[in-house]
Amino acid sequence: MKKAIVALGGNALLRGDQLGTIEEQEQNSKTTLENVISLIKAGYNIVITHGNGPQVGNILMRNDAGEELYNIAQMPLDVCVADSQGGIGYMLERILRIVLKEHNINKEIVTLVTTVEVDINDEAFKNPTKRVGKIYNKAQADKLTADKGWVFKSDPKLPDGWRRAVPSPQPIKVMNSPVINQLLEAGNIVIAVGGGGVPVYYDENGNVRPAEAVIDKDRASAVLAAEIKADEFYILTDVSNVYINYKQPNEIKLETLTVADAKKYLAEGMFGEGSMAPKVEACLKFVENGGKKAIITEATQLSGENSGTQIIP
Amino acid sequence: MKKAIVALGGNALLRGDQLGTIEEQEQNSKTTLENVISLIKAGYNIVITHGNGPQVGNILMRNDAGEELYNIAQMPLDVCVADSQGGIGYMLERILRIVLKEHNINKEIVTLVTTVEVDINDEAFKNPTKRVGKIYNKAQADKLTADKGWVFKSDPKLPDGWRRAVPSPQPIKVMNSPVINQLLEAGNIVIAVGGGGVPVYYDENGNVRPAEAVIDKDRASAVLAAEIKADEFYILTDVSNVYINYKQPNEIKLETLTVADAKKYLAEGMFGEGSMAPKVEACLKFVENGGKKAIITEATQLSGENSGTQIIP
Repeated sequence: MKKAIVALGGNALLRGDQLGTIEEQEQNSKTTLENVISLIKAGYNIVITHGNGPQVGNILMRNDAGEELYNIAQMPLDVCVADSQGGIGYMLERILRIVLKEHNINKEIVTLVTTVEVDINDEAFKNPTKRVGKIYNKAQADKLTADKGWVFKSDPKLPDGWRRAVPSPQPIKVMNSPVINQLLEAGNIVIAVGGGGVPVYYDENGNVRPAEAVIDKDRASAVLAAEIKADEFYILTDVSNVYINYKQPNEIKLETLTVADAKKYLAEGMFGEGSMAPKVEACLKFVENGGKKAIITEATQLSGENSGTQIIP
Repeated sequence: MKKAIVALGGNALLRGDQLGTIEEQEQNSKTTLENVISLIKAGYNIVITHGNGPQVGNILMRNDAGEELYNIAQMPLDVCVADSQGGIGYMLERILRIVLKEHNINKEIVTLVTTVEVDINDEAFKNPTKRVGKIYNKAQADKLTADKGWVFKSDPKLPDGWRRAVPSPQPIKVMNSPVINQLLEAGNIVIAVGGGGVPVYYDENGNVRPAEAVIDKDRASAVLAAEIKADEFYILTDVSNVYINYKQPNEIKLETLTVADAKKYLAEGMFGEGSMAPKVEACLKFVENGGKKAIITEATQLSGENSGTQIIP
């Protein structure tokens, strides 16, 4: 029995042009999971991981609004990420139960709340880059910096728009990976590492503390994929393949990408910084840690002829 | 190795007289979990279940505020319950890791997002009784009834206070109980069935649908306890024992309570309707389904001489 990890992008659940209602999220999930079924039919045991960008963004906004309107204590970022794991994980599990039934597949689904270890001395903590939550004006942002120590970055699209910036440290270890592996090898479908996992670190006394950060979900999924010795690692996104010279006259669609070429193209800045580059890096990490094949593609390509872009040793 | 389920009451995490900050919740959890350690030291494999009353109440309020201030789509009740499982489960897992380390106990902790099956024809759906979320005035309540079909009940403490009332159906089955049992027997500590589980039902086509309801966490825990054939079932609450004629001159503290006596006292209305009665009923259900012993007590009593009130066949 082969093992695969399938990382669902945010757009697999909620697209930017949508309102974010539960009906939209359910419909998007169903379409995505219908495609993931082909891997199960092909004999893979799978772990599904997922992003949480739009959802945790909404949770953070609601936190702000709840304090503003009703004076309800705001929860810190780690608890908001954990909340989003619960809500998204539950929804994926429920929809997947429906899809499995349609295909007469008898498998149990187990959804885990997952923490992921980071290093509190990671350079990322000195330079928060990931924008989350509400857009504030300068005065509001300054007050929040004074009150809560939040770091703000201006939003380049707005004249007086400031958003909280949080660090995006490297994932070191998925806390429950041995258990995830046992559940997987027993034939269960596992949903885990939602939103890249809740980031935690060990303090000087060896106690687990929360890190106010977000982890890239593809990077965290790659770490898990290596830890459980997955055969294949899929990153599902909104394009069928990785391209070089993307959207230029000399654009080339890649069918395969070797580790050496991937490193060269990354160094040349060939892939989008906040979009394709971290996905290619995550795949590299997996393949360099012993993985046989990583695939970047659209969900709809899983059951088709095209097999996306394969990153191989 | 004996198996026990420990159901933590809402006050084990967040007390009514507190603001609900994360620091308070962490401190309360730590105190409670310090006591639960005695069961692990006594050789039990344990499942920890927990309430979510104050937390899901806050999540519902934030949902309302997020729509009001920022026009963010509200999530339905099932997703809010799942969110609370993520946030609370994560927090309990993290604090328990710290407590285990203090006691040099080397065990893995696994936190599951849990759905629980209910019957959509349960009589409870015709008579919603459980008040959740924000207090509205009559005009607001009427509008929400028209817009979303919500049912409202007046708040007896307020002249024009209306709260959404949701059904509290009986739990039938914990969807993941075989997996919970495997994880438990493998020596892991499992955190599950948060807030009584996310209520779902099978529609006429056998598909899993969300139920807009909340399940009593003690009842759901009792169902799980019977399903995994737990030896003991603990309900931790804010009193050391069950009493008859509670707070009256002829009050009697119960050390043991047989099934027959429990039924008699319940019929006599001897236990508080929204408080002790459902706990005694949950214990009865467990013992009648083959459980050896159910215990209602305070967390602090677990490591002491007093062993609370034991409900036995």
